[in-house]
Amino acid sequence: MQQVGRQARAASQQASMAESGLRDQALEAAASALEDSAATLAEENNKDLEHGRESGLDAALLDRLELTSQRIAGMAEGLRQIVALPDPIGEITDLSYRPTGIQVGRMRVPLGVIGIIYESRPNVTADAAALCLKSGNATILRGGSEAIHSNLAIASCMAAGLSEAGLPEHLVQVVNTTDRAAVGALLGMNQYVDVIIPRGGKGLIERVMRDSTIPVIKHLHGVCHVYIDDQADRDKAIDVAFNSKTQRYGTCNTMETLLVAGSVAANILPDLASRYREEGVELRGCERSCALLGDIKPATEDDWGEEYLAPILAIRIVDSFEQAVAHIEKYGSHHTDAIITQDFDRARRFLRVVDSSSVMVNASTRFADGFEYGLGAEIGISTDKLHARGPVGLEGLTSQKFVVLGDGHTRT
Amino acid sequence: MQQVGRQARAASQQASMAESGLRDQALEAAASALEDSAATLAEENNKDLEHGRESGLDAALLDRLELTSQRIAGMAEGLRQIVALPDPIGEITDLSYRPTGIQVGRMRVPLGVIGIIYESRPNVTADAAALCLKSGNATILRGGSEAIHSNLAIASCMAAGLSEAGLPEHLVQVVNTTDRAAVGALLGMNQYVDVIIPRGGKGLIERVMRDSTIPVIKHLHGVCHVYIDDQADRDKAIDVAFNSKTQRYGTCNTMETLLVAGSVAANILPDLASRYREEGVELRGCERSCALLGDIKPATEDDWGEEYLAPILAIRIVDSFEQAVAHIEKYGSHHTDAIITQDFDRARRFLRVVDSSSVMVNASTRFADGFEYGLGAEIGISTDKLHARGPVGLEGLTSQKFVVLGDGHTRT
Repeated sequence: MQQVGRQARAASQQASMAESGLRDQALEAAASALEDSAATLAEENNKDLEHGRESGLDAALLDRLELTSQRIAGMAEGLRQIVALPDPIGEITDLSYRPTGIQVGRMRVPLGVIGIIYESRPNVTADAAALCLKSGNATILRGGSEAIHSNLAIASCMAAGLSEAGLPEHLVQVVNTTDRAAVGALLGMNQYVDVIIPRGGKGLIERVMRDSTIPVIKHLHGVCHVYIDDQADRDKAIDVAFNSKTQRYGTCNTMETLLVAGSVAANILPDLASRYREEGVELRGCERSCALLGDIKPATEDDWGEEYLAPILAIRIVDSFEQAVAHIEKYGSHHTDAIITQDFDRARRFLRVVDSSSVMVNASTRFADGFEYGLGAEIGISTDKLHARGPVGLEGLTSQKFVVLGDGHTRT
Repeated sequence: MQQVGRQARAASQQASMAESGLRDQALEAAASALEDSAATLAEENNKDLEHGRESGLDAALLDRLELTSQRIAGMAEGLRQIVALPDPIGEITDLSYRPTGIQVGRMRVPLGVIGIIYESRPNVTADAAALCLKSGNATILRGGSEAIHSNLAIASCMAAGLSEAGLPEHLVQVVNTTDRAAVGALLGMNQYVDVIIPRGGKGLIERVMRDSTIPVIKHLHGVCHVYIDDQADRDKAIDVAFNSKTQRYGTCNTMETLLVAGSVAANILPDLASRYREEGVELRGCERSCALLGDIKPATEDDWGEEYLAPILAIRIVDSFEQAVAHIEKYGSHHTDAIITQDFDRARRFLRVVDSSSVMVNASTRFADGFEYGLGAEIGISTDKLHARGPVGLEGLTSQKFVVLGDGHTRT
């Protein structure tokens, strides 16, 4: 692993000297390489699938592991979309003259070396490496051991692209071992790795948080809320609350708890509950919701903090705006929270006081996503406050340094 | 300590609901309280000074510890300067419509609770607390035990200001114990503290880095370079190199190593060396510098990585631009590095490839400072890449969350 780290650092330094266009050329060539190597990719993927079947992986995991020809085409397409994004690197902003006569501005630069630790989906290898490369970084990728053949085959395509563009192949390295100790080694390589981005379940993230001596950009969990205010428009409330839960169940920006102002609950909740029931969503309510809706399961204290990632919804009737905000603060995960209201002051206040990476008015929590926000692509959604918060696009993979231009200026 | 943490978190939440103007009122009132309490402050400070003398603190430390009436007035003035800065909190940028019809932007918000760990200078208590308060954060301050009476007295003035503005007093808390275990406890309070900012010597910073489970914004050390290129203007080169070393010795943005292109060394170095000698700067040179300058001390390998913070300068003659950049990469601390050149391409290239928090062309490294950069004030200079890099002003004490505005928009 030390050698992998050294190679990454060296490649990152070489890349910082390279023309911007070369990184796009490399990605374009890697996309073609993925398409041209579809047969090889499928073959290598088959080794992983067979091994997975033998070792008893469940159907959902096997599905995530599979590289169908459609998924391979999708990876290549993903790379070309990243090529089409503007290059963030080298951009100078806020360059202005100071009273002393020096010019001071900020230049956007790569972070350096990014370690990605992820689980079964092999397309992460191409996606993550491409975003890191576009933003001028070197990447060390450590995928799940069940996808090792697939990941190495994808890495070869990335290497072919880099080499065609004349860039160092070590800009993208997949750790070529299934040894679990490699993760620990990666998390300790401060001298070579600038940031770690784990992508996977809560267990993985918690392990990385515990063991990493390198700064981590992480997505821990999403316990997202929609609060239907007493000044909500009834139709918008029902549409947004329905969509926030049911548009997809397994995503981190899916609503897990619905809060409803007491004075409008009787008018809104029964119809909304019917729509959920039609869709097969299990409802778990506070005492008042249970009384209002009849045969729903009572929610326990644990339900309020639960990220179901499933067709289950907790419902709580609250007395006031303040109570809703306090609930979100106490039980939420600071990921994405929305208010449904027609009241201008409440909307402004919610935006200001709710301390989440995305706060919304009259919009579905499902919009919390790099593509929807116009970032072009995302490497993940950060629930941290430092550096990147919310959906992380290319900008989150960069930092800004100060540039100072003078004419022999000295300080007095 | 747990109680201190809980109080800070609660205060930070209350403050997030408060009007912006109240924070300025509190700072203004705290400034007046410092002036009105000058006698008490001097008295409390005397306890620390006496105790310091008894326990044998050296003269430099005792000087740093002393709160003269001028220094007290300076603290009050510092607070008023912070009042005069624009409020960063709540600022919404980049708000634009997406193809789906939602509006997406970013709002600047406080980080939450900031822990400051610092050494002897008591004015840090007022400065740091004021910057954190201006940016909407709660602060937990842990100063050196030798300054405990002074720090608590300053904290009372801050509390008086907060209380006058109707803000929670726990927004600014000085840890009221000299127990060393308190630092460890503070570094472990993830649930209450969002970021730790250590201010002090390398020993303190390294301890904080090792023990903190909370993200740290830190300034490790400054090994800054000036490179005199073969296309440098002779006069500018001499002025900037002289100023970068001698304007102040003990600061992190002081040049510690001078690099000179071989082809111009004979023309520039002897005169420059005379100026350094007149100023009493000890020179330590590479073999070629020694040959050129005569009786200077040979530099050892250790000198290239040394942060002298003293009238000592290492000098190395290099063969090329590339060699200068490689030296900076190998031995520098990525703090502040400058090139002196009249060549346009070299200047552009240096700005791009040198991976330091400040990169400069034809300007003294001593300019790397929050005031000089127009940040208004600084809480420190970060040598990290994530989040804040270089001088950290109010913006570095904030984060940005996404705001989404809709009209009942749902995702399809």
